[in-house]
Amino acid sequence: MPALPPRVIPTDEDLHDLARRTGAACRERSVRLTTVESCTGGLVAHLITEIAGSSDYFIGGLVTYSNDLKVDLVDVPAEVLAAHGAVSAQVARAMADGARRRLGADVAVAVTGVAGPDGGTPAKPVGLTYVAVADADGDDVQRFVWDAHRSGNKRMSAAAALELVIARLSASRA
Amino acid sequence: MPALPPRVIPTDEDLHDLARRTGAACRERSVRLTTVESCTGGLVAHLITEIAGSSDYFIGGLVTYSNDLKVDLVDVPAEVLAAHGAVSAQVARAMADGARRRLGADVAVAVTGVAGPDGGTPAKPVGLTYVAVADADGDDVQRFVWDAHRSGNKRMSAAAALELVIARLSASRA
Repeated sequence: MPALPPRVIPTDEDLHDLARRTGAACRERSVRLTTVESCTGGLVAHLITEIAGSSDYFIGGLVTYSNDLKVDLVDVPAEVLAAHGAVSAQVARAMADGARRRLGADVAVAVTGVAGPDGGTPAKPVGLTYVAVADADGDDVQRFVWDAHRSGNKRMSAAAALELVIARLSASRA
Repeated sequence: MPALPPRVIPTDEDLHDLARRTGAACRERSVRLTTVESCTGGLVAHLITEIAGSSDYFIGGLVTYSNDLKVDLVDVPAEVLAAHGAVSAQVARAMADGARRRLGADVAVAVTGVAGPDGGTPAKPVGLTYVAVADADGDDVQRFVWDAHRSGNKRMSAAAALELVIARLSASRA
């Protein structure tokens, strides 16, 4: 699972367009969407709900900032957190699977990462981010290492999350 | 409970400053904060987490966009929703009280409103918004009627939510 190349920080317009396309993809497949966010801190849900009528497909979401909430709200196993750390592919998948099940959505997207400026380590540097999506067919995860400041890293992570939802829905059976 | 006068839409800088002051107030009183948002859709949590180190006082939050999630995640009584509607002082208080208890926070702030452009009625026009805060001493709620577009209404609601937290913490026993 190689790191994808760094990107530029998306503009407000870029993010709005991604949210609009996410909504269109959900409508097309009558999908009910949810979000579970760590490092993006609510930005993905905020972007989705900038679109008028988003309550038709977005039921709501979770910001599981603390590890306790990752366990309590979306059933990330404490052993997985201990073994792999909160910023890991395993936790991203568990967050997406758990949110989908606990909130009763068709599709869930999860983000966990090190937004910075603090919290980085040699093994898990600032900018390291995992984005996962889960639906009835299973889940998928992507790894990124952003190189921006905190706010820019959040924006790139949110864009990657919405792009992953769009890609997953586009590839799914109609 | 009269409507407060309309305000101007806060800039990114205004919102960042409010989030910074919210964090400082939480640190000063060693408070663990949570959010439960309907019309703002995650914007309040996003703003709080723009501040580096916010994981010290922000445990996470909920976006209860659907009525089902208001019941399931924060125990808003279905009878209260049926009697008063999702956009009401009663539901705002119930969201804040429920989020505080369910997520184990010291202080919870809740927002529910009609962001628009659709969903307004003569009794509950677009822009009508309730913001509530709950702590160990009880809760408080404020009513607003914003006159902006969807995105501007969300920004004014988020600013009001952060201001209410700051005011509550400033007035609380040290």
